[in-house]
Amino acid sequence: MTEILERPAAGASSAPDRANAWLSAFEEALTARDVDRAAAMFAAQSWWRDLVSFSWNITTVEHPEGVRDLLTATLERTAPSGFATSEPPTEDGGVVTAWFTFETAVGRGTGLLRLKEEDGADRAWTFLTTLDELKGFEEPKRTRRPRGAEHGADKGRATWKERRQAEAESLGSTTQPYVLVIGGGQGGIGLGARLRQLGVPSLVIDKHPRPGDQWRNRYKSLCLHDPVWYDHLPYLKFPDNWPVFSPKDKIGDWLESYVKVMEVPYWSSTEASSATWSDETGEWTVEVEREGRPLTLRPTHLVFATGMSGKPRMPDVAGLDVFRGDVHHSSRHPGPDAYRGKRAVVIGSNNSAFDICGALWENDVDVTMVQRSSTHIVKSGSLMEYGLGDLYSERALDAGVTTEKADLIFASLPYRILHEFQIPAYEKMAEVDKDFYDRLDKAGFWLDWGDDGSGLFMKYLRRGSGYYIDVGAADLVANGDVRLVHGQVDHLTEDAVVLADGTVLPADVVVFATGYNSMNGWVADLIDQETADRLGKCWGLGSDTTKDPGPWEGEQRNMWKPTQVSNLWMHGGNLHQSRHYSQFLGLQLKARFEGLETPVYRLQEVNHTG
Amino acid sequence: MTEILERPAAGASSAPDRANAWLSAFEEALTARDVDRAAAMFAAQSWWRDLVSFSWNITTVEHPEGVRDLLTATLERTAPSGFATSEPPTEDGGVVTAWFTFETAVGRGTGLLRLKEEDGADRAWTFLTTLDELKGFEEPKRTRRPRGAEHGADKGRATWKERRQAEAESLGSTTQPYVLVIGGGQGGIGLGARLRQLGVPSLVIDKHPRPGDQWRNRYKSLCLHDPVWYDHLPYLKFPDNWPVFSPKDKIGDWLESYVKVMEVPYWSSTEASSATWSDETGEWTVEVEREGRPLTLRPTHLVFATGMSGKPRMPDVAGLDVFRGDVHHSSRHPGPDAYRGKRAVVIGSNNSAFDICGALWENDVDVTMVQRSSTHIVKSGSLMEYGLGDLYSERALDAGVTTEKADLIFASLPYRILHEFQIPAYEKMAEVDKDFYDRLDKAGFWLDWGDDGSGLFMKYLRRGSGYYIDVGAADLVANGDVRLVHGQVDHLTEDAVVLADGTVLPADVVVFATGYNSMNGWVADLIDQETADRLGKCWGLGSDTTKDPGPWEGEQRNMWKPTQVSNLWMHGGNLHQSRHYSQFLGLQLKARFEGLETPVYRLQEVNHTG
Repeated sequence: MTEILERPAAGASSAPDRANAWLSAFEEALTARDVDRAAAMFAAQSWWRDLVSFSWNITTVEHPEGVRDLLTATLERTAPSGFATSEPPTEDGGVVTAWFTFETAVGRGTGLLRLKEEDGADRAWTFLTTLDELKGFEEPKRTRRPRGAEHGADKGRATWKERRQAEAESLGSTTQPYVLVIGGGQGGIGLGARLRQLGVPSLVIDKHPRPGDQWRNRYKSLCLHDPVWYDHLPYLKFPDNWPVFSPKDKIGDWLESYVKVMEVPYWSSTEASSATWSDETGEWTVEVEREGRPLTLRPTHLVFATGMSGKPRMPDVAGLDVFRGDVHHSSRHPGPDAYRGKRAVVIGSNNSAFDICGALWENDVDVTMVQRSSTHIVKSGSLMEYGLGDLYSERALDAGVTTEKADLIFASLPYRILHEFQIPAYEKMAEVDKDFYDRLDKAGFWLDWGDDGSGLFMKYLRRGSGYYIDVGAADLVANGDVRLVHGQVDHLTEDAVVLADGTVLPADVVVFATGYNSMNGWVADLIDQETADRLGKCWGLGSDTTKDPGPWEGEQRNMWKPTQVSNLWMHGGNLHQSRHYSQFLGLQLKARFEGLETPVYRLQEVNHTG
Repeated sequence: MTEILERPAAGASSAPDRANAWLSAFEEALTARDVDRAAAMFAAQSWWRDLVSFSWNITTVEHPEGVRDLLTATLERTAPSGFATSEPPTEDGGVVTAWFTFETAVGRGTGLLRLKEEDGADRAWTFLTTLDELKGFEEPKRTRRPRGAEHGADKGRATWKERRQAEAESLGSTTQPYVLVIGGGQGGIGLGARLRQLGVPSLVIDKHPRPGDQWRNRYKSLCLHDPVWYDHLPYLKFPDNWPVFSPKDKIGDWLESYVKVMEVPYWSSTEASSATWSDETGEWTVEVEREGRPLTLRPTHLVFATGMSGKPRMPDVAGLDVFRGDVHHSSRHPGPDAYRGKRAVVIGSNNSAFDICGALWENDVDVTMVQRSSTHIVKSGSLMEYGLGDLYSERALDAGVTTEKADLIFASLPYRILHEFQIPAYEKMAEVDKDFYDRLDKAGFWLDWGDDGSGLFMKYLRRGSGYYIDVGAADLVANGDVRLVHGQVDHLTEDAVVLADGTVLPADVVVFATGYNSMNGWVADLIDQETADRLGKCWGLGSDTTKDPGPWEGEQRNMWKPTQVSNLWMHGGNLHQSRHYSQFLGLQLKARFEGLETPVYRLQEVNHTG
């Protein structure tokens, strides 16, 4: 009876009334520790995604059963309270959307609720809960920012510069980082900034001489494929004059400046050669070489931020040693300048392959692209308009969708049904760009839209490959300026690539734009294969589509959350993911640093080793 | 009759109705080119401040007569239109406040109107009009930002890095800057960023090795005296974790990063030795030495951004050559480290004197402060609370007062009556900090509150000196930790400062914290005395108070606006002024670069040469 009486009635009520009623009733059920009542407030098909606030994990539970399981495990300890809408809820197409804030025993959070009427009552369809900050460990920003000048007069106090210098001198010698982040690209840097803000002693190391070199050293025509609104780092946004697609050297300069102004502890020209965990000391022993000088670091946590793409995948092709021209993986391609007037063969037909083919053609190189399997292509403008525009654009900003809100909206869409939201956008792109696709098709290019037509972002989340965001090079293939052939590479001769069908492609330079292996390859290299296997495959959802084998994992494998290897974390992704998930990885590490209890709900299992 | 009928009626109407009615009627009068009718819509005591939009000047006209004069000179050409409120007007204490936008023949602007009822009609009490952008020359930001990656495929196109390199190589050799900015502190850098955004070929030069050295080279304890919310540069705001009072080395790093990410054309280690104007060529000939290599630049406009404080004022004291210890102006004071255990005499009792005394005391130096005349002191916290808090603070931001709005609100308060707004704030500070002032008074410190009790900001605007924002050192004087003496310096001996009354102050180091001369000293040095005299005194309002002789000038002398010296401009001020007025100086230079007509209304006269 109680359950029925307290279940909010849908119908004529306003969106705010409906959302407030649901949140109040939900809080009552939680306060009463009535797991069944709370679970019954979710729709038969529903998803609760929690980012650290209840689960100390990144996890999605499904349907009332999943909610019951999550709450049974976490409710008592989490002690949630204070659920309140943070802006007026809205209703669209029968779905009420409500932003809310809440508290737990140890933190404060933000959430996003979508309600639907089902069986005469409003029930949660999607429910997102995220942890914003830990009580007592709030970040020093806005009203809590440091004063800078300490007022008063104190004998012998040190200046900011003196304190910074002392810190730099002691780090790695008399003091140890609690967290060592390996890899100082946008992922490592953004996480480094979060940890700095959170007061977690950390160090980011990177092999390049300067922050940003990770971008500067790529092929010279490279620009970001994602637009600026999607690419902000934590805390410090690009100014309004920043290019839509940042040129690689410009983003390199930004990252370098960011490290400095955010005071990220960062060692350039530093490479780790081995890492060993000791159960006894509860520490890693990491051997590094800093500017040529060997050094041992003893962090408690180790974060791999070495690139979600993992290690370059270089096929084992016969004849690599006899080929007399240049041959390299796309990650090492220097750009077209040295090849003017020569013949290039590019193996592969995804982003890097197209970028490289385009730049080579622009510099009067004779270019052949070897397509080995089908590729998904979307025009950059269409992707911005139909794929990202509602969340990441000037239009979105004008509508009040800040980067922070966009990140949460995106995070609130359950992976399990995300493809359903994606398919219509790609159907629209296929329609508006029909001529473009017809031309590619006529040129013999093998096109696809993902196994289920859900397009680029799902391919990215599932396998991290298989697409090209067209910024112009597709037309070169369509009109024959870049020669297209199909097949698998059999071997190289002194001056040509030979395909399995016997086709001979004369070449002065061969570029293998053949992608990357799983991130845990880095772990095998630095630690050992056993640990890499125990960690398991990284990235992907278990969608049982090409290159993303099932079973369903619920979240991206091993990313930003506890793994089967104690005190080892994987961080990365595009700029959006690095920005957003560094918040949650940062808070998980902060909680451990402060000695808070962090019982992990449903630690992920390993279904694939690599 | 028409006039009476069309004059909006005050009374029971709402604030929006009253503001909209006034703006409509005003626009009608302007459209009819009816100067008398428009002037009659202003209160008997009223001020219209225009920042470039009508006057191509920074100017304030007073009362209906002044409005009539401004409009008679500018209305036909300005052709204003489209006055519309940009947010709901509000009413408080009988004053209606309305934000509005408008257009002119060549630009778009923002304004702020305050209405009062007078003689049965709503009349403007204060009226601010500012130019935001020039039509056809809108800045490439937000939806107009550059794409970065140019889509498509073009043979031989250059990358961002290649274009930046080519530009850097040609600047000063095959291409000339249209504007040369001398001085690369926050003023020059912010203006350089504006000009870059506006597409005006410019160059900022500075003698220091790195941007930010202007701050890094100051005494080591220095932090900004103004809080962070007041200090943003154009386009790129400090992140939310930035200290309230930025340490000098941290602001130095920010400026250096800013130059890079905003792509400000900036030559370090460059000093100008002479500048000559040629009527014939319409160009300046500026001799500079860049990293030791002499070079001639030929800019069309010359901007001095060498510091509003002008040249260090070093009194001509006998015995400077016989004194055996260190003696220097405060601008060259290195900080306390070398003086531990020694005796210091600091001449002066304003900001620098207190900062230096405090840092010396903290490092166990025996310190004597010589007060020569009275000083205005406010506690930093009280200044933030009562002086700035409504405009520049987290509280202001939470109330929707962005930095941009705060700048305009401040700009909308007429200098003529600004002291009236200031006096109550300082009366409040005197009250809440009474104990503090009593202690200083008891210690014999000569305090003042400005000639008319209007406090710090008026002193700053009128004379740029005469105050200390207390961050702790005042207590050292109050409690005797820093010895206080009064008097004028007569001469120095081998080891002491001797005052006019015969007092001998033994000293190992003497610091002259004796302030700065007028900025046009820089002009005399670089160009010649005749030009400096023709330019006249810079800074100050003509308030007929101490160090700010009358007659009333209406605006700050020679700052950010056309001067009596053709193609010569003075830029500077604190971070707030540098930020805000660089917008208007930038637009004035842009208009000239594009060949727009820029007839200056009421070019300022010179009443004092220095």
